[in-house]
Amino acid sequence: MRILGIDPGYGIVGYGVVEKIGNRIAHVVHGAITTGKEEHFEDRLDYIYSEILRIISNYTPSLIAVESLYFYKNAKTAIFVGEARGVILLAIKHSGIPFVEFTPHQVKQTVTGYGRAEKSQIQKVMKILLKLDEIPKPDDAADALAVAWCAAVTHSGLAPSSRK
Amino acid sequence: MRILGIDPGYGIVGYGVVEKIGNRIAHVVHGAITTGKEEHFEDRLDYIYSEILRIISNYTPSLIAVESLYFYKNAKTAIFVGEARGVILLAIKHSGIPFVEFTPHQVKQTVTGYGRAEKSQIQKVMKILLKLDEIPKPDDAADALAVAWCAAVTHSGLAPSSRK
Repeated sequence: MRILGIDPGYGIVGYGVVEKIGNRIAHVVHGAITTGKEEHFEDRLDYIYSEILRIISNYTPSLIAVESLYFYKNAKTAIFVGEARGVILLAIKHSGIPFVEFTPHQVKQTVTGYGRAEKSQIQKVMKILLKLDEIPKPDDAADALAVAWCAAVTHSGLAPSSRK
Repeated sequence: MRILGIDPGYGIVGYGVVEKIGNRIAHVVHGAITTGKEEHFEDRLDYIYSEILRIISNYTPSLIAVESLYFYKNAKTAIFVGEARGVILLAIKHSGIPFVEFTPHQVKQTVTGYGRAEKSQIQKVMKILLKLDEIPKPDDAADALAVAWCAAVTHSGLAPSSRK
């Protein structure tokens, strides 16, 4: 079973794909969709939407896991991240692939055993767990691999849940 | 020139269409896209996206005006409204129609001369300005008409701006 993990954002969207075969979880790919401040915001949203669809089409996951982010210091940032998350969820919906959500705390707890782990710790742990030669970069891609890992160890893929 | 105004939200998205002919601004239609709490969030987003495209296709505006909302007491609400705004902006982008944004303060200032006007005041003023028999309901639709009105009086339609 192949799982795509996504760490939402508007400047950088991290993605990571893992393959679960029996009890083994193997690395497939990771990377980031980046958009520039100089672009119109609607163009950035459209690019994120198109790239998510392209990644789904390229790697054909059977489950998608997205980090849920409910807390921001700044309401303006929350709106912008929300706008990016909206088009990511729409792309997933349009792909027809089931998806699950995990909070950052759940992801950190699952991969490091500690709900408040730092980004650099997530990178180091994912390098070890997925037997990579280097730490996954950027940290958004490491987070995305961690979300995918979290889905791989906690979900059978038979009963995906989604937010109401 | 026909202008579609949109008041974003995830439970209720208000919309209103006005026609500017010379210096006259006439009412065309108003209403609301509503989604239910019992639906999965991605289905609500997809419905909003589809309905915005349908409204654009039905009423063929040459300019779209969207209310920009940057302040929320609750970050969770801000994320949810952001997700809905994201798919609304994506639908507008996919339609190819130029769009402009106005803050609630700009809209209120323009239609009532007072930046902190209440929702009920917006409804009463739009009834008068657009020569309607009744106040436009729900208030989200009145807000959408007010955004469209604001675009009609401030924009020539020749130089649409969008957020970077």
